[in-house]
Amino acid sequence: MSGRVAVIGAGPCGLSQLQAFESARRGGARIPEIVCFEKQTSAGGLWNYDWRTGTDAYGEPIHAGMYRYLWSNGPKECLEFADYTFAHHFGQPIPSFPPRPVLADYVLGRAKAFGLRRYIETNTVVRQVSFDQDAGSFAVTVRNRDKDEQRTEHFSHVIVASGHFSVPNIPHYEGIESFPGRVMHGHDFREAREFKGRHVLVVGGSYSAEDIALQCHKYGAASVTISYRSAAMGFHWPDTVDERALLASIDGAEVSFSDGSAKEFDAIIFCTGYLHHFPFLDDELRLRTGNRLYPADLYKGIFWRANPKLMYLGMQDQFYTFSMFDLQAWYARDVVMGRIGLPDGAAMDADMAAWSKREEALPDPIAQIDFQTDYCKDLHELVDYPHFDLQLLADNFKEWEHDKEHDILTYRDKAFRSACTGVLSPVHHTTWLEALDDSREAYLACG
Amino acid sequence: MSGRVAVIGAGPCGLSQLQAFESARRGGARIPEIVCFEKQTSAGGLWNYDWRTGTDAYGEPIHAGMYRYLWSNGPKECLEFADYTFAHHFGQPIPSFPPRPVLADYVLGRAKAFGLRRYIETNTVVRQVSFDQDAGSFAVTVRNRDKDEQRTEHFSHVIVASGHFSVPNIPHYEGIESFPGRVMHGHDFREAREFKGRHVLVVGGSYSAEDIALQCHKYGAASVTISYRSAAMGFHWPDTVDERALLASIDGAEVSFSDGSAKEFDAIIFCTGYLHHFPFLDDELRLRTGNRLYPADLYKGIFWRANPKLMYLGMQDQFYTFSMFDLQAWYARDVVMGRIGLPDGAAMDADMAAWSKREEALPDPIAQIDFQTDYCKDLHELVDYPHFDLQLLADNFKEWEHDKEHDILTYRDKAFRSACTGVLSPVHHTTWLEALDDSREAYLACG
Repeated sequence: MSGRVAVIGAGPCGLSQLQAFESARRGGARIPEIVCFEKQTSAGGLWNYDWRTGTDAYGEPIHAGMYRYLWSNGPKECLEFADYTFAHHFGQPIPSFPPRPVLADYVLGRAKAFGLRRYIETNTVVRQVSFDQDAGSFAVTVRNRDKDEQRTEHFSHVIVASGHFSVPNIPHYEGIESFPGRVMHGHDFREAREFKGRHVLVVGGSYSAEDIALQCHKYGAASVTISYRSAAMGFHWPDTVDERALLASIDGAEVSFSDGSAKEFDAIIFCTGYLHHFPFLDDELRLRTGNRLYPADLYKGIFWRANPKLMYLGMQDQFYTFSMFDLQAWYARDVVMGRIGLPDGAAMDADMAAWSKREEALPDPIAQIDFQTDYCKDLHELVDYPHFDLQLLADNFKEWEHDKEHDILTYRDKAFRSACTGVLSPVHHTTWLEALDDSREAYLACG
Repeated sequence: MSGRVAVIGAGPCGLSQLQAFESARRGGARIPEIVCFEKQTSAGGLWNYDWRTGTDAYGEPIHAGMYRYLWSNGPKECLEFADYTFAHHFGQPIPSFPPRPVLADYVLGRAKAFGLRRYIETNTVVRQVSFDQDAGSFAVTVRNRDKDEQRTEHFSHVIVASGHFSVPNIPHYEGIESFPGRVMHGHDFREAREFKGRHVLVVGGSYSAEDIALQCHKYGAASVTISYRSAAMGFHWPDTVDERALLASIDGAEVSFSDGSAKEFDAIIFCTGYLHHFPFLDDELRLRTGNRLYPADLYKGIFWRANPKLMYLGMQDQFYTFSMFDLQAWYARDVVMGRIGLPDGAAMDADMAAWSKREEALPDPIAQIDFQTDYCKDLHELVDYPHFDLQLLADNFKEWEHDKEHDILTYRDKAFRSACTGVLSPVHHTTWLEALDDSREAYLACG
């Protein structure tokens, strides 16, 4: 078949796309030429740890925002690759909540095992993507930062896999300029020990706020206050952690909350989310959405409705991650290769409208899990991605939610069953609260 | 006359360029259409204080790196606008070393007085600049961030005034990933009180290292160690400040230096300079230089040798600032308007070679001051910028250098004579070391 495909980003989504094409190639199919442009010096996306914050050695915004001692906040069984299991990669059973270096090793391990590196041009930032109506192809302008050279190439398809958790959303609060301590977004959080003995305010109500608050507690913060906008997380926090209503104003070190309370802090950490940010895309190609389970304008959550030769991976709010990215990538591959045909516009609109309507009516996290499970099942029906038990995954997610409700400090000590192998994971040798060393070696040791 | 001029950036250099054209217009000349694109929400460039670090509300790298309690580290008399004096703006004599808000008020005050705002499109980031050989014009692609719209316009001339102190140079040091405290570049330094009682390592040997070290001392750091690469600054530091040779390695909180010494720190601040970073310029238009007094490829330090319709302002290492920017802007204006003709290539090359040869032989800061003074005189000869006493300015710089050698803690308490009015400034009501309030109100109060 003809065609030339640009993949933007070599994080988990981009690697899933390369894996999808490589698996087809190994199955005997002729695949199009694939070029994956990666801004960072190596593949891995957010899973690369970067001690720098702000801008990188080339003056570009830092992509990775993961921090030291970050342990998975969901069971690894809920993100396992069906074609490359944890048991296969590590050669031993491992517990359900690995630290970042272990998951990074797993993601990059599959890429290495399948030789995906040869598709990737690292240190190359995509500067502009335009669609040429006459030629019917995309002009992609990139800058190779090693060679310090810019060039434009043409592609029949573009797959955007640049992620949506790397560009911080940083709201302004009255008086913030007068605060005498550190002010930062969670994207710049690297080292919990920096806040030992400090009184920390965490602003936000989602996963980042939850985990950074727990990190600060675990590594010795004097107190952690979490300020929420809409609703408290309501977990059974330790005594030194509390939740308060919306931050109202800041006067020097004293922060006032909308419940009338006030407290002095040493640091403020904004866990206020991220922007879907695609400065390299022409306006008519640019996805504009918040962080939701079914972004508008993407058929099957993948195909840019106005021009389906442009695809997006992983732009949803996520319970499912790696395995969902694989399903999206397999589906995108099959459309590119003509194995799956896209319906006419009316049919696409009807399908998108039905999913959107259902999404808007979702009452709670349990219903959200079922929604994304059904979305994954819908993709899985038409592609040859290996079987895995999506219903067991959904049950795992719900059990995990209940574990967190029961005790936010111990939920990572639980064990889950693989949806790929059916095997129940071992319990880790050390509880999360006591495990201070996040190295691969410490984690894989028998303890 | 015909022509359409794009000015990139509305900081001091961009404002100087607008002032140059506006003064010609007020003098009765027909000037070309001028469009100044400014990324930030207001003019002022680095002189805007931004509490954010990393990326801004639109996901673009933060430009401004100035911090609270930043007081000018050079006499205001050495940067005074000859067409808009400090005495005229403030209506009263003011001391020689104002804090940031006062200098920002001055820079923006001239812009307001001359109505320069109408030339500026704020919140508009330049994405790409290309030169069309056939059309003989520049294609400038910009994104208006308010409207979230990208567009391309064409200009006969482009003047790059985006600065070179906004994109940090952040080297890697062995073991930095293991450091348990805060790691940052000086560009992200905002609030000295954050380091009260802390042991701070400042890496660098130039103005940023000098001033951030003094800020940390002034606002209560337990100790400040400055690590230099080539040579110690050698000032008479207070007892809690010391200088050490190159940072060799980092092991946890302990930092080892090449002189064999070691010390534990709470924070590391890299004052390791900035990159000349022009991601928006096509390769053949892009200045590539370090921070030096006479960058290569710029005739008169302004005109891009390969295509003089592209100009750069303020790309030099700087003793002179605002007044030098004015001289460059006046010169650029007169070339654009045909008042000054550029010589042929051979003559330009000979002129550039002579300046470069002299620059490379400069033995010390005093010779560097004379060099930049002569550079300014060379520009001033051909333009109608108001007279000011450049020789007095050079003497002021040298006196300032001697004051710093004498006492780095008191040099800001000295008074200098205006090169525009000849008037000696008053001594400030409070010494710099005792002046903790950097507000305009406190500074202008009679004390």
